[in-house]
Amino acid sequence: MFPFIHEIYRFPYSDYRAIPYGGYDRLPAQQRLTFVLVHGSWADAHFWDGIAAALRKAGHIVHTPEYAGHGHDPNKNVTHAMITKSVVDYIARHNLHDIILVGHSFGGTVIQKVAEQVPNRIKRLVFWDAFVLKDGESLADELPPPTRQGFEQLRASSRDDTIMLPFPLFRELFVNTASLEQAQQFYTSVAPEPAKPLFEKLDLKKFYSLPTPKSYLYFYQDNVLPQGEGYGWHPHMSIRLGLFRLIVGDGDHFTDSRTRPALVAQKLYEAGRD
Amino acid sequence: MFPFIHEIYRFPYSDYRAIPYGGYDRLPAQQRLTFVLVHGSWADAHFWDGIAAALRKAGHIVHTPEYAGHGHDPNKNVTHAMITKSVVDYIARHNLHDIILVGHSFGGTVIQKVAEQVPNRIKRLVFWDAFVLKDGESLADELPPPTRQGFEQLRASSRDDTIMLPFPLFRELFVNTASLEQAQQFYTSVAPEPAKPLFEKLDLKKFYSLPTPKSYLYFYQDNVLPQGEGYGWHPHMSIRLGLFRLIVGDGDHFTDSRTRPALVAQKLYEAGRD
Amino acid sequence: MFPFIHEIYRFPYSDYRAIPYGGYDRLPAQQRLTFVLVHGSWADAHFWDGIAAALRKAGHIVHTPEYAGHGHDPNKNVTHAMITKSVVDYIARHNLHDIILVGHSFGGTVIQKVAEQVPNRIKRLVFWDAFVLKDGESLADELPPPTRQGFEQLRASSRDDTIMLPFPLFRELFVNTASLEQAQQFYTSVAPEPAKPLFEKLDLKKFYSLPTPKSYLYFYQDNVLPQGEGYGWHPHMSIRLGLFRLIVGDGDHFTDSRTRPALVAQKLYEAGRD
Repeated sequence: MFPFIHEIYRFPYSDYRAIPYGGYDRLPAQQRLTFVLVHGSWADAHFWDGIAAALRKAGHIVHTPEYAGHGHDPNKNVTHAMITKSVVDYIARHNLHDIILVGHSFGGTVIQKVAEQVPNRIKRLVFWDAFVLKDGESLADELPPPTRQGFEQLRASSRDDTIMLPFPLFRELFVNTASLEQAQQFYTSVAPEPAKPLFEKLDLKKFYSLPTPKSYLYFYQDNVLPQGEGYGWHPHMSIRLGLFRLIVGDGDHFTDSRTRPALVAQKLYEAGRD
Repeated sequence: MFPFIHEIYRFPYSDYRAIPYGGYDRLPAQQRLTFVLVHGSWADAHFWDGIAAALRKAGHIVHTPEYAGHGHDPNKNVTHAMITKSVVDYIARHNLHDIILVGHSFGGTVIQKVAEQVPNRIKRLVFWDAFVLKDGESLADELPPPTRQGFEQLRASSRDDTIMLPFPLFRELFVNTASLEQAQQFYTSVAPEPAKPLFEKLDLKKFYSLPTPKSYLYFYQDNVLPQGEGYGWHPHMSIRLGLFRLIVGDGDHFTDSRTRPALVAQKLYEAGRD
Repeated sequence: MFPFIHEIYRFPYSDYRAIPYGGYDRLPAQQRLTFVLVHGSWADAHFWDGIAAALRKAGHIVHTPEYAGHGHDPNKNVTHAMITKSVVDYIARHNLHDIILVGHSFGGTVIQKVAEQVPNRIKRLVFWDAFVLKDGESLADELPPPTRQGFEQLRASSRDDTIMLPFPLFRELFVNTASLEQAQQFYTSVAPEPAKPLFEKLDLKKFYSLPTPKSYLYFYQDNVLPQGEGYGWHPHMSIRLGLFRLIVGDGDHFTDSRTRPALVAQKLYEAGRD
């Protein structure tokens, strides 16, 4: 009845005096960041190609790890833990520190779990129109019931426990601001998505105890989830982060990664900088 | 208590395999559309003059049918069915097919009923800050109670069962981003609105069974309805469409039709194209 | 359960025929306004410096009264009534009439009370991401419980019943779109805020009987309050104004007052003009 979730909207930084923000004085005017970009469902690491190029051009270090069940991985029978392990292993293998860990869409659930495992390597978490699950939730729990039922039907009708996104849904919900030609071009990159991780309930107790700074980047033409009345990216999921920095843009869920990568890069920088 | 309306948020396109989107390949790069634009209350077909000119300049065919009780029609004693019939008859008389049927404001309720009668002539429905009524609802049911009571008082005080929009309401709610001079100029076009169709409860069962593609165009400075907490255009009414394409602009309810018609035309094209 | 507040969403201007809007014809094309700008918490009258300069350059008269407990006032032990009296006395002392009374943030609660005392001097009230309290509420009542508890802890730990805004909260919530360097610069102006007025419950019965025209200016990257699900500036507080003019901008809570003062000035003009 009372829509605010008391348990997870904790007052942040009650020990703020311990935060050495005076140290910020030593930062150069043009801050150089290390981004690790984690894509979402029906995408692979190439989702980030244009955005990563724009960030690198601005002087940043950018990593775009692929994860289990996606890209060239032929095995679609993966769990959420395997996906998380892909990203954790990538970060450890490259010995990355002070990273801005960005999750897009389903990637939000991945960075929640990655943050639990390597919190000391992360400088800030950035959720870009990304799921922020409550402890014990699955991604599917955040879908309107008819959408969830639709996904369950698509899952049941697949031969390898995947969900293929029908083009009309992709066109209207993921690339709504694109032209049809752009939508068709983007759709050639869409592969069947392993279903299991979308329905796994995640233990996120540790995530909600982490003091890691967090940002939420919201694009207001994003149409993947209904925006309001109990669903949606912002504020429905963003407020679960407790204290977070809000950055807003005018894009949709997928289109701008291709058509305006420099804009997305700038917004990710605004979300990720100190 | 649970604000999501299960019955009408159906998973769309469960039979998507039957949709020949491969046929989209044959579309020309610059898609030519046939628009039928249906205005709202306290307006007539001239509401569309600037927008229609901009659309025609871009190569589209545009129709702006007038309907019963509006424009030059001296009879204000009309029903919602008479208004619907005006548009249906216009479409049939001109033998229009593959139309992008656009409804603005009250016009949303009109295109809901028109779609029920000539579904095979319609390529896509576009609701622009328009009412999407639930089955059995009237437009008045979507107004906050004090607003509805105010309209009922204005209705009762009229001699011909109309409601005249007071200038202060028009200025603050319909043309809030305009200058006073523009608001006064626009107000010279405002005529008393037939009251009955705003209070008629509509049978919309067939509408909610139609597979017609749908879009919602939302202008975020629109102030006609409270945006949120149980009221408003988007997402409150847009989510009733099930699968829909969202397009967002920065205008208000009336002003941009006069001051930025090319912007509105572009947004309607983005909402209407395949 | 039903989130709409019947009592305060009264149908406005039911006596609209008495409003001489025909008199607007005599206004010059370039309307000259008298602004009185009332800042919020963790700020002083210098908050308005850039905005006031931009408004004056556009031909307007601008006043930026300081109020009790702020600026050079060494006494932090103030009440809401003392703050209100500061602004009322300023208006009386300068014999101001036909003023556009603007409140930012906490300043919204101040202009609510000022309007009760000098309604005849006010042409229009403008709330810019400002609190609009219900009768009997305190500002603290509009904060999410964990935020309120955090403020109560900060208050309890102060020696002079003030609340100092920790830098991380200021940076993420008040100047989220700024660079770190800008945030640090702005933070040098932040002083401990007298706590008592934030927790005082206000009698606002008279405010809700005033026919004064009202506007709400909402910046959609403002992150001070969660935007939705029972909290936030617009529409959560704006709808309490009954009839109001909505103007929307893309800024945050503090940054644009420094980085884009001309933009804020233009938006305030759009909110304030007839």
